[in-house]
Amino acid sequence: MAEPHVLSVDALLQRVETIFERAGVRRESAKAVAGVIVAGERDSCKSHGIYRIEGCLKVLAAGKVEPNAVPQLHDAGTSVIEVDAGGGFSNPAFHAARDLLAERTRANGIAALVIRDCLHFSALWHDVEALAEEGLASLSMCPSYSFVAPAGGTEQLLGTNPFAFGWPRPGGDPYVFDFATSVAARGEIELHRRAGTPIPEGWAIDRDGNPTTDPDAALDGAMLTFGGHKGSAISTMIELLAGAMLGEFMSKEALDFMGGTALLPRHGALVIALDPRTFAARSGRDPLAEGETLLTAIGAQGARLPSERRFAARRKAMRDGIALSEAELAQLDRFEKDGLAAVGA
Amino acid sequence: MAEPHVLSVDALLQRVETIFERAGVRRESAKAVAGVIVAGERDSCKSHGIYRIEGCLKVLAAGKVEPNAVPQLHDAGTSVIEVDAGGGFSNPAFHAARDLLAERTRANGIAALVIRDCLHFSALWHDVEALAEEGLASLSMCPSYSFVAPAGGTEQLLGTNPFAFGWPRPGGDPYVFDFATSVAARGEIELHRRAGTPIPEGWAIDRDGNPTTDPDAALDGAMLTFGGHKGSAISTMIELLAGAMLGEFMSKEALDFMGGTALLPRHGALVIALDPRTFAARSGRDPLAEGETLLTAIGAQGARLPSERRFAARRKAMRDGIALSEAELAQLDRFEKDGLAAVGA
Repeated sequence: MAEPHVLSVDALLQRVETIFERAGVRRESAKAVAGVIVAGERDSCKSHGIYRIEGCLKVLAAGKVEPNAVPQLHDAGTSVIEVDAGGGFSNPAFHAARDLLAERTRANGIAALVIRDCLHFSALWHDVEALAEEGLASLSMCPSYSFVAPAGGTEQLLGTNPFAFGWPRPGGDPYVFDFATSVAARGEIELHRRAGTPIPEGWAIDRDGNPTTDPDAALDGAMLTFGGHKGSAISTMIELLAGAMLGEFMSKEALDFMGGTALLPRHGALVIALDPRTFAARSGRDPLAEGETLLTAIGAQGARLPSERRFAARRKAMRDGIALSEAELAQLDRFEKDGLAAVGA
Repeated sequence: MAEPHVLSVDALLQRVETIFERAGVRRESAKAVAGVIVAGERDSCKSHGIYRIEGCLKVLAAGKVEPNAVPQLHDAGTSVIEVDAGGGFSNPAFHAARDLLAERTRANGIAALVIRDCLHFSALWHDVEALAEEGLASLSMCPSYSFVAPAGGTEQLLGTNPFAFGWPRPGGDPYVFDFATSVAARGEIELHRRAGTPIPEGWAIDRDGNPTTDPDAALDGAMLTFGGHKGSAISTMIELLAGAMLGEFMSKEALDFMGGTALLPRHGALVIALDPRTFAARSGRDPLAEGETLLTAIGAQGARLPSERRFAARRKAMRDGIALSEAELAQLDRFEKDGLAAVGA
C-alpha cells in the first residue's frame, strides 16, 4: 500500500460516527448508519460507501429525516415483527429489531420483519449478512424511486427495487446476493451522461418508449428491468410485498412524496428470515452441509459466487486498512468540522 | 368453434380422473392430479396440459411413484407446516395441506409449507392461485433436473428451477407469475432439435462452455439462466431454500437418483404464504387496494401482466369448452382403455 491516506476500518468508523453525531443524529443511530457506510467502503462497494455520507447529510439538512427518531418495536407475538423507524434511517430500525427477528425465526421456523416509515439508502446485503451470522437464511427487499418501466410499458412506475438473499456457510463467508432489479443502476447512466458516452442497448427507453442509447433520453424516459418480463415480474412483486402489503409507499408514491429525486426515498422494507435447522429437522440431513455441496460445486466449475469480490476486499481492508483519496479525506474533514453547513444548510 | 372435438372443462376433468384411477392411483390423488392437468389445458398452457398424462403414466408404470400414497400432515404448531407426499405426486400433498397453510398464515401473518418426497410435474401457478383465492400472497419454488450451468460456469448443476408468486386481486384474476429461471424451457430446445433449426443465442453453451446455437450441442452442454448472473443467483437460492434447507434433493441429486431424465424428478417443494391484512394492519391502509393502484397503472401503460393470456384462455374454455385434436382424443381413449399398458407397462 503506497497510498498515503490509509485508515483502519475502526478509525474510519469512528470518524463517520462523529460526523453523524455532529450532524445531530442520536448516538445509537449514528453508530448504525456509520456501520453500514463503512462496511460498504471496507468491501470496496464504493457506491454504498462514504460517498453516501453527503446524501444523508443533505436529507438531514432538508429536515426530511428525523435525526432523533428512536425505533419502536411492535410485537404481537406472531411471526410478523414490526419496527417503526419514525422517519429515521432504516439501519437503526433494523438494528433494533434484529435480535427479536432471529429469536422469533428460531421459535417459529420462519418470521418476517416489517420496517416502517424509514429513509433508505443502504445496500440490503448488510441485513442478510447479519442474519446469516445468526445461522439464518433470509430475503430482503424494498421499493425505491420509480425510474423503471414495466416490461411492455413505456413509463416510469417501478423502482430499481433491490432484492437480496443470504445463506449461512459454516466457517466461511455467507452466500449473499443483492442486486437491483433494473438492468443497471441509475448512477451508471448518469456517469455515461457526464462522460458523453452512449449507454449499452437494453438499459433504457426514451419518453416515447423506444430503445435508446442516449443517456439524456434514458434519464428522461425510463430504465428497463433485468431479464425482460421475468425481472419485471420480480420488481412488481417487490412493489406489492414491500410496498402495498405493508401499507407503506410504493416507488411512485415515494417519488411523489419527496417531490423529486434530490433526496433519499422514504418507504418501508421487508425482511423474511428462515431457520434451516427447523426446515430440515425431520429429514435427518444437515441443511448447511447440503448447501456446501452445491456452493462448492459452483466454485469447482470456475464460476464466481455473488459477493466473492466484496468479501476479498473486506479481508484486505481488515488487514491493510482502507485507502482514501486526498479529496475523500478532505471531504470527511469538512463534514466533521462544518456539520450540516457543509451541505449548504 | 368449428373444431369437432370440444369437451366441457368438467367432461375433460372426468375423463382424466378416470384415466388415473384406472392406472391404479387412489381416488383423491387422481382428482388432484387430474385437476392441475386439466387446469393447464383449460388455460391453453399446453406444455402443462393433457400432454403431461403420458409422463405421469410412465412414472407409474416404472414403479417410481407411489400411486396409493396418502399425504401425511405434520404440524408442530409453528409457522412451518410439513406434508410428506410419501413418494406420490406433489398435487395431492399440496391439496391436503392447503387449508392448514391458509389457517396458519392468517394466525401468524406468515407461514411456510414444506412438501417432502414428491414427484413433481405441474406448474406452480396452480398453488399460488389457490392461496390467492384465500386472500393470501405466496411464493412457490422447487428444484428440478440439473440442466443449467451457473453464470460463469460450464457444467449442468442447477435445475430450471421454477419461481412463482401470487397476489390476490379483489373481484378479478390474481396477479400471478410462474417462470423457469432458465432462459428457455428444455422442451423448446428439443423442439428446435426436431425441427432442425438453430436455437437463439444466449440459451445454452456446449460441453466446452462455449456459446452455441446448435440444439444438439446445447442438450449435450448446459442451458443458461435468465438475466445472466442475477438469474443464476435466484436459481441458486431456489436450490438452497427448496432443496438443501428442506433436507430434500437438489436438482443434481434428483437427476442422479432417477438415473436419467426419462422420468419425472423426485424432490421437495417450498411454499411461503403471507397475509396482507396482517402485514398492513397497523398502517391503516388497504393493501389490496394499494396493489390495485400499481397493477392498474401497469395495464394503463399498455403493458400486459403475467398470466393475462392464460386467464383469457380460461374464460374462453369455461364458456366454449376445450377443443382437442383427433390425435389428442384418440390418446385419451387409449389411456382410458389400456391403462399403464398404453405406455408399455
